[in-house]
Amino acid sequence: MLKTNIKKQLMAIVGQERFFDDDETLVAYSYDGYVVESRPDAVLFPLATEEVSEIMKIADQHRVPVIARGGGSNLTGGTVPVEGGIVLNFTKMNRILEVNTGDRFTVVQPGVINANLQKELSKVNYFFPPDPSSMGFSTIGGNVAENAGGPRCLKYGVTGDYILGMVVVLASGKVIRTGSCNVKDVTGYRLSSLFCGSEGTLGIITEVTLRIVPLPESYRTIVAYYNNLADTAETVKAVLAQGIIPTAMELMDKVTTNLVEDNAGLGLPREFEGMLIIEVDGVSEAVSSQAEKISKIAKSFGAIEILEAKSSQERESLWKARKSVHGVLSKLAPNCVTEDATVPVSKVPEMIIGVRAILDRHNITAGIVAHAGDGNIHPVIITDTRDTEEWSRVETAAAEIFKLAVELRGTLSGEHGIGLAKKQFLPLVLDENTRELMSVVKKALDPAGLLNPGKFV
Amino acid sequence: MLKTNIKKQLMAIVGQERFFDDDETLVAYSYDGYVVESRPDAVLFPLATEEVSEIMKIADQHRVPVIARGGGSNLTGGTVPVEGGIVLNFTKMNRILEVNTGDRFTVVQPGVINANLQKELSKVNYFFPPDPSSMGFSTIGGNVAENAGGPRCLKYGVTGDYILGMVVVLASGKVIRTGSCNVKDVTGYRLSSLFCGSEGTLGIITEVTLRIVPLPESYRTIVAYYNNLADTAETVKAVLAQGIIPTAMELMDKVTTNLVEDNAGLGLPREFEGMLIIEVDGVSEAVSSQAEKISKIAKSFGAIEILEAKSSQERESLWKARKSVHGVLSKLAPNCVTEDATVPVSKVPEMIIGVRAILDRHNITAGIVAHAGDGNIHPVIITDTRDTEEWSRVETAAAEIFKLAVELRGTLSGEHGIGLAKKQFLPLVLDENTRELMSVVKKALDPAGLLNPGKFV
Repeated sequence: MLKTNIKKQLMAIVGQERFFDDDETLVAYSYDGYVVESRPDAVLFPLATEEVSEIMKIADQHRVPVIARGGGSNLTGGTVPVEGGIVLNFTKMNRILEVNTGDRFTVVQPGVINANLQKELSKVNYFFPPDPSSMGFSTIGGNVAENAGGPRCLKYGVTGDYILGMVVVLASGKVIRTGSCNVKDVTGYRLSSLFCGSEGTLGIITEVTLRIVPLPESYRTIVAYYNNLADTAETVKAVLAQGIIPTAMELMDKVTTNLVEDNAGLGLPREFEGMLIIEVDGVSEAVSSQAEKISKIAKSFGAIEILEAKSSQERESLWKARKSVHGVLSKLAPNCVTEDATVPVSKVPEMIIGVRAILDRHNITAGIVAHAGDGNIHPVIITDTRDTEEWSRVETAAAEIFKLAVELRGTLSGEHGIGLAKKQFLPLVLDENTRELMSVVKKALDPAGLLNPGKFV
Repeated sequence: MLKTNIKKQLMAIVGQERFFDDDETLVAYSYDGYVVESRPDAVLFPLATEEVSEIMKIADQHRVPVIARGGGSNLTGGTVPVEGGIVLNFTKMNRILEVNTGDRFTVVQPGVINANLQKELSKVNYFFPPDPSSMGFSTIGGNVAENAGGPRCLKYGVTGDYILGMVVVLASGKVIRTGSCNVKDVTGYRLSSLFCGSEGTLGIITEVTLRIVPLPESYRTIVAYYNNLADTAETVKAVLAQGIIPTAMELMDKVTTNLVEDNAGLGLPREFEGMLIIEVDGVSEAVSSQAEKISKIAKSFGAIEILEAKSSQERESLWKARKSVHGVLSKLAPNCVTEDATVPVSKVPEMIIGVRAILDRHNITAGIVAHAGDGNIHPVIITDTRDTEEWSRVETAAAEIFKLAVELRGTLSGEHGIGLAKKQFLPLVLDENTRELMSVVKKALDPAGLLNPGKFV
């Protein structure tokens, strides 16, 4: 609980109507999309950079932790206030401040929901490429702090590739402005890149300038079904080997399609071991020839059935199957843990077979989906953390999955971040000197350790 | 001059044959592509990360500055040892350690020349997109440390967008390994992004893992000539407004084409005010339709003559005109200063007119070339720094150009960096808090200030 004088000072900044410390609110902000819970002392809804700066100054003075939070969809416990403190909920700082198609950038507040930004941009025939599966409710601020990915990052790259500039409130409450609206800008250190992916541990992002891209002229979306899961992954490798970079190549295994069918009834065929969605976008003439090549490759790698979306409705319904996985599976049990170990694409067949073997060995119910084109594998594990025996098996399996990924030259996390879930595994990929340097950076920017404490650094 | 005992210790690491402190060598390393000169105390040619680490430990112990250097083509004095010390010449650490087309990355030592990497990659139908005009002699280490750009960054992005991982020797001599070979990797802070563009002030890069891209199926290269310079820039805006992102859109003004013709005789027409080279690449069907659209747009904006390269020879000869500008102009006078202020593309017409007016007002001989598609404007000024009156006019003009760029929402440098040339202008774009944060980062990573001291931070 915050001391009365601190509470008073904070209330003076945001007013009573944007300050909460009732039990119900504190419980609601004690968790995110992962399984750990810990209550904050207060939840504030700032409206402006200046307010965040004032709040941060008070927090600094009284040594109170501050945790920035967007949609709360983090899958690694990144927004859980493990040491209490103030949660800054950015959902009211959700304005799109500028959309500049001539110069291809947009300036947004951190609380803008990704899908809402897409909607606004589509009105002027533009889009923001990063499309995490949470885009319907996750915010740009969260996307940036986690360096979020998504299916179409295969072609377009991740969130960090689209950041031109930022306004950030530092641990001291000082405000900095990094970058600009220019794609080429080598004026000083690339500080925006440092805050991106720092999971709220280095500064509080209060404004972002993002590069935007013209909507492609057309899409072609192909679905291929296989009797052998490894063949889906081999198809992915072969498509890339031909020099084709699709927008996305998404893989789902039989367990996943059947769990989705059981619970959402989308009409997916149940009998196949693997399903692959491949989408290409671009100039009409180009995507047609690419789609033909992809179908041929899929066939040559054993695809039993190949469908192509004939309309944008059909395209959307194909994507619905993929996008509904997390939502559907998370309703099947009290907890749903989605891992996101990543391997080089050539290792995807080996990784998928290995992950399924690990899950089976530990008798764990999980679907496997993957952004296969960039090696980002998601075992979606449905479990109950209260069942300590089962949860211990889940933890063992996760550790084995990380170890396998690293053995295959991969990494712990492709897009979900480290947060609490993977902090103990960092030494698998980062040696002591590198972890020490991260602490040096953290200490330099946040000497009192107030920004999202208790996390990976 | 280094003390005898330090010299002995360094020689024990690299051997006599890779240690130099004779006058001739020290003079040769006292300058780069800018106009400032200052001698180092010694020049060493390391062969391995371990050697760099050992050298750095000795430098740290004795508080000797260390300056990393690749091809020495830096245009802002970034590699000039203004406080003396040890220059590490990386040109002998020039091996390509791995080319992995299946997983689309390459691992290189920092001394690999950009063009040599391109040559090796082209053998397996891949390329590394960043293509600074210095690519024939600049190294990947330098490209990374400067976050280099180039013409085709319009479509493909800058060097920083292609870095997957790094090995870096810190100021203490400790070695860290950041990132991996995975495109999606959110495992800890994005330290590679911090070292990229840090101009050798935060650490010494000794290995880089880079993302590579399949060579496009085909190119179309168009040249358009205009009677009015602003029309070239309007064409650039209009092409982008149609949602076409060419590989490159390069602009040259009449002064430039005539200076090139006077001195290289490439057969360029001399009468036009502006020349625009536009290139598209990709799937054959797509580039054909894009090339047609571009020709139409150029015509509608007043292009008098429009040519298209009919062969790869013709394509190369068109590019030769552009790529020879710096080389030709730098031979016309003792000094050649290339600025690279950058503005949003919508402001390119205004910027080009403004820059020409500034140059004329100060009676300065200069061509204007531009990576117009990304707003990166290069006035190429030919001058003689010994003529103090003229040099003072050049400095005044440069200051006015930077001010104009910032007024137009642009920035000081698109791809050349800050180095010595622009350090005094940083406050134009970065406020006090942001500059202070850069110092905090510098101090945390290099407490004794040994890495490339006297530069922008």
